[in-house]
Amino acid sequence: MALIVQKFGGSSVADVERIRRVAGIITDTYSAGNDVVVVLSAQGDTTDDLIEKAAEINPNPSKREMDMLLSTGEQISISLMAMAIEQLGLPVVSLTGWQIGMQTTADYGNARIIRVTADRIRTELDRRRIVLVAGFQGIDKYDDITTLGRGGSDTTAVAIAASLHADLCQIYTDVEGVYTCDPRIMPDAKKLDEITYDEMLELASLGAQVLHNRSVELAKRYGVKLEVLSSFVRKPGTQVKEVVKVEQTKISGIAKDTNVARIALIGLRDEPGVAFKVFRVLSRSKINVDIILQSIGRDGTKDISFTVAKSDMELAEKVLREHKDEVGFEDISVNGDIAKVSIVGAGMMTSPGVASLMFEALYDAKVNINMISTSEIKISVLVPVEDADRAIAAIHRKFF
Amino acid sequence: MALIVQKFGGSSVADVERIRRVAGIITDTYSAGNDVVVVLSAQGDTTDDLIEKAAEINPNPSKREMDMLLSTGEQISISLMAMAIEQLGLPVVSLTGWQIGMQTTADYGNARIIRVTADRIRTELDRRRIVLVAGFQGIDKYDDITTLGRGGSDTTAVAIAASLHADLCQIYTDVEGVYTCDPRIMPDAKKLDEITYDEMLELASLGAQVLHNRSVELAKRYGVKLEVLSSFVRKPGTQVKEVVKVEQTKISGIAKDTNVARIALIGLRDEPGVAFKVFRVLSRSKINVDIILQSIGRDGTKDISFTVAKSDMELAEKVLREHKDEVGFEDISVNGDIAKVSIVGAGMMTSPGVASLMFEALYDAKVNINMISTSEIKISVLVPVEDADRAIAAIHRKFF
Repeated sequence: MALIVQKFGGSSVADVERIRRVAGIITDTYSAGNDVVVVLSAQGDTTDDLIEKAAEINPNPSKREMDMLLSTGEQISISLMAMAIEQLGLPVVSLTGWQIGMQTTADYGNARIIRVTADRIRTELDRRRIVLVAGFQGIDKYDDITTLGRGGSDTTAVAIAASLHADLCQIYTDVEGVYTCDPRIMPDAKKLDEITYDEMLELASLGAQVLHNRSVELAKRYGVKLEVLSSFVRKPGTQVKEVVKVEQTKISGIAKDTNVARIALIGLRDEPGVAFKVFRVLSRSKINVDIILQSIGRDGTKDISFTVAKSDMELAEKVLREHKDEVGFEDISVNGDIAKVSIVGAGMMTSPGVASLMFEALYDAKVNINMISTSEIKISVLVPVEDADRAIAAIHRKFF
Repeated sequence: MALIVQKFGGSSVADVERIRRVAGIITDTYSAGNDVVVVLSAQGDTTDDLIEKAAEINPNPSKREMDMLLSTGEQISISLMAMAIEQLGLPVVSLTGWQIGMQTTADYGNARIIRVTADRIRTELDRRRIVLVAGFQGIDKYDDITTLGRGGSDTTAVAIAASLHADLCQIYTDVEGVYTCDPRIMPDAKKLDEITYDEMLELASLGAQVLHNRSVELAKRYGVKLEVLSSFVRKPGTQVKEVVKVEQTKISGIAKDTNVARIALIGLRDEPGVAFKVFRVLSRSKINVDIILQSIGRDGTKDISFTVAKSDMELAEKVLREHKDEVGFEDISVNGDIAKVSIVGAGMMTSPGVASLMFEALYDAKVNINMISTSEIKISVLVPVEDADRAIAAIHRKFF
């Protein structure tokens, strides 16, 4: 017998049929003798419908009132799921964010969890009830309702698992686990049995939309064992934990991110403070920068290249041109037709030759590399966007 | 400057246009220098939609989970209304039942209010904010969400008005006030400027669907001055209070109730305990009895006639026939084709001749009376259902 926290997303509870299927997973887990706490998201398009309703009334409502509105979505999910489980004859109770003492900051729309009291959850578990919790929501010190922003329901599940010292936190999604590569790009992508928190973090930030970074970070900090698995196919998923068995392969995944643009500043003066001036201009406009590379230019100048989200590309070019004299560059070049392809693996630290294997794969596939960036467990390259899927296929063939 | 509680029902906030109209009423009241607390119901058909969703999953869900589900409807209303008021540039905050400390019994689906803390409302009023409150909902001693059942939002408004010692509690509806008679039956029905709590109670229980009895009783107990008025037409409505100015007319209203059936038991033994036996049988089957009349029958027997809700008619006949020997009657006659027509007026106590004026009107209109029942401020008659509207018109002409 174990204490298991399960999380189901909006698509898993989108209609009556899916609610019944999920109720079956929950009650099977309970009937096997486990204590079960379940975190649910709003049904399918509920959140979008509510946002649309609000927009008709006020295109710019306060975030406090948006949270008051949006938090109803999860409340509807938990009560409907409770009814489905009652129908199966098992004891169940649904609880909102404030009822479980999910205390957050007052950053409406994007609140951070401060602590989870969870007394009420413990009481209900002691009574042998299945406990359903509204994800994505909490209350702040004013007793106002907050929402946690993107990935909020995953984060709710991990925070509750941490607070209850749960044995396992299962994140149910519409995929069967974490793959070595996007199965839509690479049909023979392999599902991983295990992956480390750090690898998962790199994969998450690289656009593999399985788990949100916040939840993985929280799981790592409190040592919550995660499992990513499918709510449609009943088989083991991918476990995310601190240490995994040594695998034959040196990398655990390949990810693609096309929401990226490359900006190059050419002919900067080679003197202290230049990089600072560049990134100060960008940060004033709240533009986040990802990969940064600096190289020697012609005639004692230097060049700086960096990537930004594609949605920030035009703004970044505009503000840099406006501050051309302050920053002091000769020319600027901007390219949005690129993709970032990354390989991630805790094993690569101790395995020389991983990078060269990747570059060899790209050479074989005749893919030109625009930019390279490496960390201890990750190697990213920028390639022309039209070559990205070919690059991924070539890398996957080389490693797996 | 006054403290005013306003309540708007589901049809008043059914769509964007109506929400904007109500936002105009609220902000005008606020801008005139008043403190304003507003109680809202769920939008139009929201509650029905949620009930339907639940029924698809479980035809017999627990009431606790139904309350968890249904309470989202009012939460959606208050947040959308807050956004509409923000759009008009005025300070506003929306609050749920638990946020205002609306403490109720644990009778899910039909909870009674125990007390309203209302501290949060006072704090927000001190900050000169318009306060929007979700009607119909509260929390019990377990911190679980409850709903108040029929007339719940009216009751919420009156309870808050009582707790805050508000100067006035305005109940906005789709009619312009309380009429001497249903305007659909009697086009020249007059709107009353004032009416007493007691008269309103009699009218409410007689099927004039303006205000629910629970809210009027609560207003009477705590001396909350009520006003019933229209959210579509901006003009004064009807004030409901303890004492009203003496009017020329002796009655304040005429009401019709067609949800009534008459059952007559004939040939009961004329001995003690007979009435007890009749009504014990009915009460075991949870059948409520309204008017009761007992009369002398033939040959030393007696007859008992009474009315029940039409929906209980068949059940009442069935259980009485099953207990024919225990109760001891010779025959039973049942009639569902009747209506109860009542006149109500605090003035009739001190005005002899009101009853005879009513009977004269019915005689003039050639309406046969089946049964008569009187109280201090009410006279009800049972008439054939097809004669009811003609009876009302005749009475109205006689009195007004």
